[in-house]
Amino acid sequence: MSGHTHISGAVTKPTEDKQPSRPRNAAGTREQLLKAAAALFARNGYEATTVSQIAQAAGFSANLVTRYFGGKEGLFLAAMETRLNLESTLPGSIDSLGQRLADRIVDRWEREGDADPLLALLRSASSRPAALGDFLEKEATGPLTKALMSWGFSDHQAVDTANAIQSFIVGTVVTRRMLNTGAIAAATGPQLRVWLADVLQRLVDEGATAESPRLPHPSASSDAR
Amino acid sequence: MSGHTHISGAVTKPTEDKQPSRPRNAAGTREQLLKAAAALFARNGYEATTVSQIAQAAGFSANLVTRYFGGKEGLFLAAMETRLNLESTLPGSIDSLGQRLADRIVDRWEREGDADPLLALLRSASSRPAALGDFLEKEATGPLTKALMSWGFSDHQAVDTANAIQSFIVGTVVTRRMLNTGAIAAATGPQLRVWLADVLQRLVDEGATAESPRLPHPSASSDAR
Repeated sequence: MSGHTHISGAVTKPTEDKQPSRPRNAAGTREQLLKAAAALFARNGYEATTVSQIAQAAGFSANLVTRYFGGKEGLFLAAMETRLNLESTLPGSIDSLGQRLADRIVDRWEREGDADPLLALLRSASSRPAALGDFLEKEATGPLTKALMSWGFSDHQAVDTANAIQSFIVGTVVTRRMLNTGAIAAATGPQLRVWLADVLQRLVDEGATAESPRLPHPSASSDAR
Repeated sequence: MSGHTHISGAVTKPTEDKQPSRPRNAAGTREQLLKAAAALFARNGYEATTVSQIAQAAGFSANLVTRYFGGKEGLFLAAMETRLNLESTLPGSIDSLGQRLADRIVDRWEREGDADPLLALLRSASSRPAALGDFLEKEATGPLTKALMSWGFSDHQAVDTANAIQSFIVGTVVTRRMLNTGAIAAATGPQLRVWLADVLQRLVDEGATAESPRLPHPSASSDAR
């Protein structure tokens, strides 16, 4: 989150929180900015959302965004990070990984609604921050790949399976939340839980049997195209 | 494709093709408009693309779009339809369906480049035409569901499997073409062909064994939430 990027609409003179009588609370301010950012990025995408809008929605001045997050990109990635939190889903039996992932996805839809970080990520896909690739590797595909290896998958089985799982989840979110069409959009929460858990667990179980490498290993990816 | 919708930028007096010496060729004009539409919708998405831009890129006047396609929505759906053409991929053995789908996806990436209709569809997901849901059911999930039933899947097995396949393909396109990150973006065409065929065939093979319904059947979808 270091490095200062250009902030459109940033004010140049120092300003205080709009409620100056309230004692400063850095953690609370940070959390309110993250919450407003998650909601606005999910609704409008990365490009169409400005730092000023987020600061205003949270009730603070835009220069606090620079101070806490270094700018728009840092704020976006921080808002994704605290809400994705994939790593807490991984510990447990490999036989119920599909169910844990499905529960996490549906819980998040039910709890976060339109502030779902996956929705923010996808609405921002066309004009994403440059650091998004590294972020996804560090926060999503990377931890999942490592977890699969800890359950006995070879390197290539883990990479292939983690990417299949990631693509399937991304496609489900796009279909339900953006295209909003067909059986995936029409399904109730409980129906989705069962279907997602079933497909995800199949991808996990079958991934362990793949015999030869398919996708390039991330460390070799710069040579691969 | 019937019904006239509002066209921004349409001219009101009758105009001719900008090359009046060329004999009129409705099929050729149609194809050039579809080609320009596919490219512009894929690059900029549905909302940001205007009928005038498309007409200008193809070298025709905007009123031809009304005449041939009824407006922007009709042109968008027609451009998707002629380029998706899923039905030609379905005939054949169920044991090689994954390979046929994978070949179609990668061939399209290699042939259409930035005019890939899946990319246009996804760039347009946030502001899609109202008719997109019906279109996807008619052109993609529907034919795939019917094909799976013809291979012996029950209704619910076919719906669940067709939707898993659709989500996985959508997610792969988003990851490679929009997020452009990780092993899926780094993979070469041949690597992607093998990986896609493998995951898709697994979704097909395992779909046939699912015992109880998960997702709602499309005909019941209006009651399901």
